[in-house]
Amino acid sequence: MPRTAETASFKFNHTMIRVKDPKVSLAFYQDVLGMDLLSEAKFDSFTLYFLAFNLSGKELTAEEKEQSRFSREGVLELTHNHGTESDPNFQGYSSGNSDPGRGFGHIAITVDDVEKACERFEKLGVQFKKKPSDGKMRHIAFILDPDGYWIEIVPGVLSL
Amino acid sequence: MPRTAETASFKFNHTMIRVKDPKVSLAFYQDVLGMDLLSEAKFDSFTLYFLAFNLSGKELTAEEKEQSRFSREGVLELTHNHGTESDPNFQGYSSGNSDPGRGFGHIAITVDDVEKACERFEKLGVQFKKKPSDGKMRHIAFILDPDGYWIEIVPGVLSL
Repeated sequence: MPRTAETASFKFNHTMIRVKDPKVSLAFYQDVLGMDLLSEAKFDSFTLYFLAFNLSGKELTAEEKEQSRFSREGVLELTHNHGTESDPNFQGYSSGNSDPGRGFGHIAITVDDVEKACERFEKLGVQFKKKPSDGKMRHIAFILDPDGYWIEIVPGVLSL
Repeated sequence: MPRTAETASFKFNHTMIRVKDPKVSLAFYQDVLGMDLLSEAKFDSFTLYFLAFNLSGKELTAEEKEQSRFSREGVLELTHNHGTESDPNFQGYSSGNSDPGRGFGHIAITVDDVEKACERFEKLGVQFKKKPSDGKMRHIAFILDPDGYWIEIVPGVLSL
């Protein structure tokens, strides 16, 4: 079905997950996965971090990053409720993949070479839910982010 | 930080959520939000539905849709575990926004006119978590999908 005029402007802008410690999570999403921090917004009790992969092929200015926050798809929003990073009673967040809390599944990153990407993740000490060699689906992997959210690693070019 | 060669191919391909009844959810994501069904993959005990907004400005062939499933950003994957739609004991899925299960937040759709989009959602019987007129943040809204997942409705062009 073609898009109607009523929804013609709609884009799937971002996905939001809560994180316990933004230092740890930002290091993961920036250094391990290679996302750019587009912008951050600090409020009294929480801070929001917006990240995305730079697909433009060129360095973006701070203004271009900030503008792209609401004009593109593929943005990841990390919400940090202040204090969780140092609260000994904080239970951690549900990944969504076990009861209770089951519902949210995962986010997925496409890469050109799953094996090579996973070798690097392993060197960087990233935890795996499923290595490419585990189970039946040899062409994909699942890594865990610092809060235990599942991140699927999928070949960007599908070889059927 | 510029992207390194190691992560240069990475894209934020998709976000996966579980849904109780695909008929209801596909109607919502296709007819209410205007997403295209790119492809579906049926397995013994579950079926996967991949949806995305067609940003190309032209009608896509089935093959182009299938290929875009792993080559673009902004894909939503709905997982249907067979039987939930008719199981009277099925408890429903956690939206991630209350305990237990808190962790996942929401997905967000940018639109060119939040007020107009919300008037249409209201006419279509969509449930609201927050109407534009509720609370302090007058320029955004939150609607609920059929499983209760939060969908933020945000202006695509940010007026600061």
